[in-house]
Amino acid sequence: MIPRLQVGILGATGMVGQNYIRLLENHPWFSITYLAASPQSAGRKYAEVIADRWLMSTPVPEPVRNLVVGDANEVSSAQGKCQLLFSAVDLDKKAAEALEVAYAAAGFAVVSNHSAHRMTPDVPMIIPEINPDHLEVIAHQRRARGWDKGCIAVKSNCSIQSYMTPLWAWMQAGYHPRRIVLSTLQAVSGAGYPGVPSLDMVDNIIPFIKGEEEKSELEPLKIFGRLENGVIVPDSELAISAHCNRVPVVDGHTACVSVAFDGRKPELEETIRLWRGFRSVPQQLNLPSAPQEPIVYRDEPNRPQPRKDRDIDQAMAVVVGRLRPCKVFDLRFVGLHHNTVRGAAGGAILTAELMAQRGIIV
Amino acid sequence: MIPRLQVGILGATGMVGQNYIRLLENHPWFSITYLAASPQSAGRKYAEVIADRWLMSTPVPEPVRNLVVGDANEVSSAQGKCQLLFSAVDLDKKAAEALEVAYAAAGFAVVSNHSAHRMTPDVPMIIPEINPDHLEVIAHQRRARGWDKGCIAVKSNCSIQSYMTPLWAWMQAGYHPRRIVLSTLQAVSGAGYPGVPSLDMVDNIIPFIKGEEEKSELEPLKIFGRLENGVIVPDSELAISAHCNRVPVVDGHTACVSVAFDGRKPELEETIRLWRGFRSVPQQLNLPSAPQEPIVYRDEPNRPQPRKDRDIDQAMAVVVGRLRPCKVFDLRFVGLHHNTVRGAAGGAILTAELMAQRGIIV
Amino acid sequence: MIPRLQVGILGATGMVGQNYIRLLENHPWFSITYLAASPQSAGRKYAEVIADRWLMSTPVPEPVRNLVVGDANEVSSAQGKCQLLFSAVDLDKKAAEALEVAYAAAGFAVVSNHSAHRMTPDVPMIIPEINPDHLEVIAHQRRARGWDKGCIAVKSNCSIQSYMTPLWAWMQAGYHPRRIVLSTLQAVSGAGYPGVPSLDMVDNIIPFIKGEEEKSELEPLKIFGRLENGVIVPDSELAISAHCNRVPVVDGHTACVSVAFDGRKPELEETIRLWRGFRSVPQQLNLPSAPQEPIVYRDEPNRPQPRKDRDIDQAMAVVVGRLRPCKVFDLRFVGLHHNTVRGAAGGAILTAELMAQRGIIV
Amino acid sequence: MIPRLQVGILGATGMVGQNYIRLLENHPWFSITYLAASPQSAGRKYAEVIADRWLMSTPVPEPVRNLVVGDANEVSSAQGKCQLLFSAVDLDKKAAEALEVAYAAAGFAVVSNHSAHRMTPDVPMIIPEINPDHLEVIAHQRRARGWDKGCIAVKSNCSIQSYMTPLWAWMQAGYHPRRIVLSTLQAVSGAGYPGVPSLDMVDNIIPFIKGEEEKSELEPLKIFGRLENGVIVPDSELAISAHCNRVPVVDGHTACVSVAFDGRKPELEETIRLWRGFRSVPQQLNLPSAPQEPIVYRDEPNRPQPRKDRDIDQAMAVVVGRLRPCKVFDLRFVGLHHNTVRGAAGGAILTAELMAQRGIIV
Repeated sequence: MIPRLQVGILGATGMVGQNYIRLLENHPWFSITYLAASPQSAGRKYAEVIADRWLMSTPVPEPVRNLVVGDANEVSSAQGKCQLLFSAVDLDKKAAEALEVAYAAAGFAVVSNHSAHRMTPDVPMIIPEINPDHLEVIAHQRRARGWDKGCIAVKSNCSIQSYMTPLWAWMQAGYHPRRIVLSTLQAVSGAGYPGVPSLDMVDNIIPFIKGEEEKSELEPLKIFGRLENGVIVPDSELAISAHCNRVPVVDGHTACVSVAFDGRKPELEETIRLWRGFRSVPQQLNLPSAPQEPIVYRDEPNRPQPRKDRDIDQAMAVVVGRLRPCKVFDLRFVGLHHNTVRGAAGGAILTAELMAQRGIIV
Repeated sequence: MIPRLQVGILGATGMVGQNYIRLLENHPWFSITYLAASPQSAGRKYAEVIADRWLMSTPVPEPVRNLVVGDANEVSSAQGKCQLLFSAVDLDKKAAEALEVAYAAAGFAVVSNHSAHRMTPDVPMIIPEINPDHLEVIAHQRRARGWDKGCIAVKSNCSIQSYMTPLWAWMQAGYHPRRIVLSTLQAVSGAGYPGVPSLDMVDNIIPFIKGEEEKSELEPLKIFGRLENGVIVPDSELAISAHCNRVPVVDGHTACVSVAFDGRKPELEETIRLWRGFRSVPQQLNLPSAPQEPIVYRDEPNRPQPRKDRDIDQAMAVVVGRLRPCKVFDLRFVGLHHNTVRGAAGGAILTAELMAQRGIIV
Repeated sequence: MIPRLQVGILGATGMVGQNYIRLLENHPWFSITYLAASPQSAGRKYAEVIADRWLMSTPVPEPVRNLVVGDANEVSSAQGKCQLLFSAVDLDKKAAEALEVAYAAAGFAVVSNHSAHRMTPDVPMIIPEINPDHLEVIAHQRRARGWDKGCIAVKSNCSIQSYMTPLWAWMQAGYHPRRIVLSTLQAVSGAGYPGVPSLDMVDNIIPFIKGEEEKSELEPLKIFGRLENGVIVPDSELAISAHCNRVPVVDGHTACVSVAFDGRKPELEETIRLWRGFRSVPQQLNLPSAPQEPIVYRDEPNRPQPRKDRDIDQAMAVVVGRLRPCKVFDLRFVGLHHNTVRGAAGGAILTAELMAQRGIIV
Repeated sequence: MIPRLQVGILGATGMVGQNYIRLLENHPWFSITYLAASPQSAGRKYAEVIADRWLMSTPVPEPVRNLVVGDANEVSSAQGKCQLLFSAVDLDKKAAEALEVAYAAAGFAVVSNHSAHRMTPDVPMIIPEINPDHLEVIAHQRRARGWDKGCIAVKSNCSIQSYMTPLWAWMQAGYHPRRIVLSTLQAVSGAGYPGVPSLDMVDNIIPFIKGEEEKSELEPLKIFGRLENGVIVPDSELAISAHCNRVPVVDGHTACVSVAFDGRKPELEETIRLWRGFRSVPQQLNLPSAPQEPIVYRDEPNRPQPRKDRDIDQAMAVVVGRLRPCKVFDLRFVGLHHNTVRGAAGGAILTAELMAQRGIIV
């Protein structure tokens, strides 16, 4: 039995913050008890602050309408109001890094969407189906930094989610993907609001997203890494080349992935069986936000497609298809996930559920 | 001095046929004197037949408005009306193959957009900047098939154009691209009209185009092949893996390309210099439809983009950008071309110009 | 207590048919027991027939996967399999008219999306919140045509739904809208699949939808008409001018509506109160598909918007906004509804619920 | 013979400013000799300032690449560099008003896209085909304000262009349009760059554009007004109701227009003849940017469409279609024009050409 936890959101007025609020409505373990944003928003009720900026298609949930927004820069404002903080602050790397450390030092469990701490060696970057055991680094993190209750965990960039679980399922079955060339077709919601101008997206695509390829090539190595001497040591055998494109899709990042293996090559049918049968810790623990089938394989030749497949299993599944031999590497496939749910707020909530279940949030 | 040639179009009511008509308006060497389509359209004036099916943004050119449409299945209808035929028939492979052979046997020079003859060994598949000398196979073709004036040449699939010339520029400089993994983001005009339903293209992409990946992987090998014993022998050292996607763009196919070389690797700056300086036979001969710069390199980090770059140099240039090291192979870049002009009717017209200049069309 | 009814769908493979199947999954009163389509589909299991044509984002419901599809032209195939038939046949007016009459004569209650019977005087065209009492014409219909159990009721064209309920709420409050000029911005799903080519919808709108303006101007008059001598006599005092446009939106028809009243003019605040407070028979009867608030008024200056508002209340609400004085008439506003749910299958299901509740389906 | 004029652009880095630069390349009368923008851009070469903000599809013209950008707030910077200034400043009403007055007082002929002076009684708002004689107010303007060479003329809001010329053609033929209800479907380029977020335009429309309806209802009255006692007196007999919508179209504003006439009603055929035959002062004077046919009528039932018709006659024509009886008023039709050319920079250039031809720019 998980005791109900009080939850705050830093950056509650932005698009990711709004997604947290939407997804946490009626959550069985977490109650939103604190919202913080920039100083201009602080001191007013959330419903009032958000009135003409609410972007979700469901209304602002009743329980948060009357919460008075705090100043996210004031750690003390959160004191006594919550134990867990989802960080969706819109700050540069340095400022975000410092602020999240300050919150952790003050005793809060911080689960962050920001990229600031993703490559920090003692901060785990969690995809709950892949590396739940990286949470063990938090004990080292607390010891090294002198924190008792506070801690920081992060989620990865949204671009990589659709191929990480399929790759992991192969790894779990003893295969060794070693070289990957992929191209993404990423939704505009990934850039937040206002984000990408429509003049760039009507009758157009943009073959570039600032910083995205670097993250897509580095972050998987840490997620597939191992815990050693109190830090996460990235995988050094995998090489990834990512081309990242922006396309006129609202939600749902698609990836076209070619994979070369070292050693044995998995068969097509075997892979589909592996993927469909893949279950991991979130499913075993029956975490509230865990998809029943983390990997959904579609047989149709022209799927997955973002508008038609992104919402499967509360938008928490990764949907794959078109597994076939690659003319240059061994195998190739197409992956898809809902970038603002599975790839952002939903993935962070699942991580926090795992942390709560493991007793890390106190 | 090229004598003016009379030109017919098979499949004159379809989208490619309309593009021929649009692009040949005011052509200095070619005059449209014959239009043919399916039996239902035959016997009526073109302006009448096309009235509510004309898709171009310029009006139906005056000189073709009153041409009486012939039945494309009746080779004899074209007799005496033209020497050169652009084939944009909408038939299955077998039927198209037979019909084009019949026209060639009857003495017409056929330049085809259809895929039927692309892999026929004695039919050249021409990209005029790359393999103009493959036209020499026509002498063998005529001899082997007993044709005196008639012949068949084809253009390649529209998906490959944006990376073929850049690859060729490297080859010309002594480099050996050997393995290529690429993803395309292809425009809806590539599927003709009505083509892709809007229900599949609003807030969506389709990670699949029937037959497109196979063509994208095979056709380059023939284009880079060599003439031997009267046939084109495909390149056997190059391997290509193509992921083809349909995106909500009107015109302009984009490709994200990763390349591994055998032997020496080209440098970034050197490549950009090579590409910008690349000129070939169509430029030397100053063919009417030849782009001045076949490869335009854009320095901006987020270009090329289809809507903004597809019309460069009368839509006959290939526009590239984002040349950078690849984390898995050697180099990667983004290529773009206008698929219904450079990649279809415009490319075929350029091929016909080359054939006319070489005295092949008689 | 409503006894559970067995339900069939004519045209089960088309987009409207699929929407029926999706919306009737888990319906408390209706069970799908029969599916019919064209002869080519007949004789095979639904799951097999629909495999690569299923367009919904939820999977084919289990209970219908194994239903063997009947031939919709064979009335006898439906005998004994259901009492209620939703007709979404894709036939021309004459054929649809005759077929629906044949089913009614054979004892089926037919609720149709087809336009064939919309202007038939003894066939009620029902919007359950507006003219539930028009169902009384069915007694006359049965008598005049000699049907005992069978009957026909229809739903209106999807284009008109978003302003009909707001107009009705005014009428109920004693106001007399008499002249209306409106423009619609209609979603592509309204044209079915494949429907509108993407070449017409990327970077474009089409200011024309065949037959749509005529329907939008005539059908409201019948819905606001009165029952007299066994037929529905259309309202003769209302005049409507409708401009219908197709726009690149997946679901959700928007209408910009200017209204002139005879006699008293309603006030702005009063109207918003009227609309928000409007409840009618479906709400009073608590019909399973009835929206709680049939008219949702949004205060934001830039709403309703199709993607953000179409799904309110299971996509069964009409969402309005921007009520303001008109410079030429009296008032103007913007209306929106989900065209394939409220405006098509959902609206028809609500009508059938009303018929079931009134004991008309036997 | 018009002497060549030196031209400056205020706001040269914005989208309208860029359009001026694009459209004035190779202009027979005007040479760009001065560019001004905000203080941050001042002092550097235009090519450098604009490098990653150039949005046009043709490259930055050679002659302006090396112009050193001036500070638009410093009137003195323009002294001696040009006679004519196109104002596309991005300032609030007050600031724009004052700045344009300062430039006029300093002797410049200012032609402005800004709305600041549109309702100023002694400033003419010109559509050259409609009210060229309103330029006579400039003599009064100069006298009243004590300006010798300087003056201000403005162009109207881009939303109204597509129906103003058709209405005027009726007026010229002796008809009296008196009440108009219309809806627009406006392109995203009308909002500038970055302008409308793509999250609001993919699978969506916005039924609201701030300030647009007010302008669309007021400005036509001034344009159709008469010169009296040194000011323009607006038409007081015409009433317009405009619903303005934003749609996912790059360029091209469409309007659905219903018109009621006082007195005689024009016939359909007669109207089409009137529109097709309409020529006015710009055509008679053969101004360089004048479209040959100011009103192009399309017979197809589904035209005009923005992507297919916006570029007719160098994008300077108004394209209309679907003229038909209105069920509430007398007639209705659909109008279209290219909003950033005819409706903005192109329209202002045509106005300046008229002013130059009349000897107003000195």
